[in-house]
Amino acid sequence: MSNYSSLERYELKEEYEKLSAAYEAYKAQGLSLNMARGKPGAEQLNISNDMLSILKPDDVFSVSDCPDCRNYGNLDGIDCCKQLFADIMGVDKKNVFIGGNSSLNMMFDTIACLMELGCSGEKPWNKQEKIKFLCPAPGYDRHFGVTQYFGIEMITVPMTKDGPDMDVVEKLVSSDPAIKGIWIVPKYSNPQGVTCSDETVRRFASLEPAAKDFRIMWDNAYIIHDINGTPDTLLNIFDEVKKTGKEDMVLEFCSTSKVTFPGAGVAAMAASENNLAVFKKRYNFQTIGYDKLNMLRHVKYFGNKDGVLAHMQKHRAVLEPRFGMVLDTLDKELAGLGVAEWTKPNGGYFVSVDVMKGCAKRVVSLCKEAGVVLTGAGATYPYGKDPDDSNIRLAPTYPPIEELEKAMDIFCICVKMAALEKLTED
Amino acid sequence: MSNYSSLERYELKEEYEKLSAAYEAYKAQGLSLNMARGKPGAEQLNISNDMLSILKPDDVFSVSDCPDCRNYGNLDGIDCCKQLFADIMGVDKKNVFIGGNSSLNMMFDTIACLMELGCSGEKPWNKQEKIKFLCPAPGYDRHFGVTQYFGIEMITVPMTKDGPDMDVVEKLVSSDPAIKGIWIVPKYSNPQGVTCSDETVRRFASLEPAAKDFRIMWDNAYIIHDINGTPDTLLNIFDEVKKTGKEDMVLEFCSTSKVTFPGAGVAAMAASENNLAVFKKRYNFQTIGYDKLNMLRHVKYFGNKDGVLAHMQKHRAVLEPRFGMVLDTLDKELAGLGVAEWTKPNGGYFVSVDVMKGCAKRVVSLCKEAGVVLTGAGATYPYGKDPDDSNIRLAPTYPPIEELEKAMDIFCICVKMAALEKLTED
Repeated sequence: MSNYSSLERYELKEEYEKLSAAYEAYKAQGLSLNMARGKPGAEQLNISNDMLSILKPDDVFSVSDCPDCRNYGNLDGIDCCKQLFADIMGVDKKNVFIGGNSSLNMMFDTIACLMELGCSGEKPWNKQEKIKFLCPAPGYDRHFGVTQYFGIEMITVPMTKDGPDMDVVEKLVSSDPAIKGIWIVPKYSNPQGVTCSDETVRRFASLEPAAKDFRIMWDNAYIIHDINGTPDTLLNIFDEVKKTGKEDMVLEFCSTSKVTFPGAGVAAMAASENNLAVFKKRYNFQTIGYDKLNMLRHVKYFGNKDGVLAHMQKHRAVLEPRFGMVLDTLDKELAGLGVAEWTKPNGGYFVSVDVMKGCAKRVVSLCKEAGVVLTGAGATYPYGKDPDDSNIRLAPTYPPIEELEKAMDIFCICVKMAALEKLTED
Repeated sequence: MSNYSSLERYELKEEYEKLSAAYEAYKAQGLSLNMARGKPGAEQLNISNDMLSILKPDDVFSVSDCPDCRNYGNLDGIDCCKQLFADIMGVDKKNVFIGGNSSLNMMFDTIACLMELGCSGEKPWNKQEKIKFLCPAPGYDRHFGVTQYFGIEMITVPMTKDGPDMDVVEKLVSSDPAIKGIWIVPKYSNPQGVTCSDETVRRFASLEPAAKDFRIMWDNAYIIHDINGTPDTLLNIFDEVKKTGKEDMVLEFCSTSKVTFPGAGVAAMAASENNLAVFKKRYNFQTIGYDKLNMLRHVKYFGNKDGVLAHMQKHRAVLEPRFGMVLDTLDKELAGLGVAEWTKPNGGYFVSVDVMKGCAKRVVSLCKEAGVVLTGAGATYPYGKDPDDSNIRLAPTYPPIEELEKAMDIFCICVKMAALEKLTED
């Protein structure tokens, strides 16, 4: 099939008829398929099952800095778990705070804390006039959700193949003291799978914010989540801010949600001692400590960072063919038609597809009618509003592979149908 | 020994000399004993060890409302765990929200939510002028900490043998719309072990607050934590508010921290659907869900409420002799001297001792010098200020029994010494 833009109107109509027939056939099957959320599939969850019974009733539950992991205490986690995350993030153990089961929850609590207490000697964010956050987009909908929940104005920043458009970021951050932060998934970004280039990371580390209490929310969710043999590499932001003397500017987050079990993993943050002192002021009232037995479970299961990396290879083995299939299908069905562009990530959990402008909502709705649930169109933009109505996030990890194949077929049909509808509009 | 008040000054001095000698002998031992926090001891933790390996790698992880407990989802917890807590609290499953590992954290998040979102159609608490909370005291220091963190003014309400002084509570609550809540541990209160009488519970349920958004923080931490054969009974507050039509007024909290493992247990709240709708507005941004595998672990281990109650008998077997020894020592060493009064709880984690007015700080400091750490004097009052400098909280659960015996000996010596110092002041 040639590029749709080169076709005559009657050819477009013919093509649409053909696609409609295929679409109706799928619809008649009453399918229920889901490519909406970045959830590991059952095969991936099975990889970590042995961790569930790794703690034994007659184990010794004391570790270097905790006489009994079964009891209260250790607000910022146990040492051996801090060390594991320190090694993964490439920071010093003293800069690590181990949280509960969710890095999203840690980020939420972090923003709540800065709203209530502030940082760098500035007034609490909720005591300042309007405050704003930069939101590179397409990005992670739950970041935007947290920002919106706290009434923080969101400013969209375009993404490039090297990360956020740093010209825009630098200009905004240095000129507006109301801008207090930026969200970024620096490696294998959600949804595009973009990794910040070395230059982007260095420019982050060299930002000169007008606000002293500006913070980079460095959500390194996919820090070790490669899915093929040509992984991206990401500079260590903490190494870079050490050089620029801006250690207080960065807050890094990660978790084992997509290493062991989503919802039963361990989350961690890395931050300067100044920043941790602020957060501990709040955590100290919020809790006596997080689940140390789950920390111990993880440490005992993995041993060390090498153990984690070896484990990630098992995830890769499951994910590589899935992403391969998705990309092959997009190539086979959509390449050259001028109806969509997409990313080819080396890691992470998503494939980001830009369909023809003004068509994303229609594609999502066509898919839904045929029993394929996608992330809502617009979700990858602040306030759920994609100005081009173009970006769609595909999450290929969760459905059984045969369902994924079907879902991808339907998706491609819908992308083409929506484009044809647009092209043949009166 | 007779009541100190009947002794001559020289007899008091003689008695002090004798006690000082015993005190110095203990001091010379360089002890390190701790009766400060309500932590279960090792023997108690061992009771639940079998739960640690109860999930097996080849288990089925799907439950009625969750296809895979290893994966994301179920913001308010899994059904079977809700049912377990519903049975424990005597409420409907639909009124239960399962949280993370800490009911303190849930209470903190609850206050944060009401600060940010408000309830009952009123303005968020942080958008209202000064707001206040009633704090029955002596009470739980961490409740007061949360209140203080959020800048809420605390008003002390006296405790009686039947719970908070409800005359005072009713008068304040009905007259001051700035009073937004009250903390209460209704059963085996921290630190006194007082259980609210039926009348007190009914008066709670019949409160007519001036503030529409007034909430009772019903921290039922020791709901099933009996320590002897004559347990207290507590009316079900939700049954009572159903009668008065004030279901929105009560928020109940509990956890398995002192059932299985502190820090690795499961916390839960019970609340009306109106209230849960408010909290879910926040939780929905805060997290994708809490640790469902730990919920499953608990459900599988206990089976049902009866299983939990049978389990609690094992805790009782450990705790009964400890509390017995503590109370016997107090009786033997202090009864009749006119230097202290104390509670004799049927459950919970503490014994509350009121030493001679103006002596609590001195007792704690004498104990500390002799190597016995107690909860700081004043901690059981808002702002850490006991107006009588009299209340001391003893936590007999954590130390090995032989250490506890020694610590109690030293404590009694210090109580007497402090009283004698006071009585012989010039």
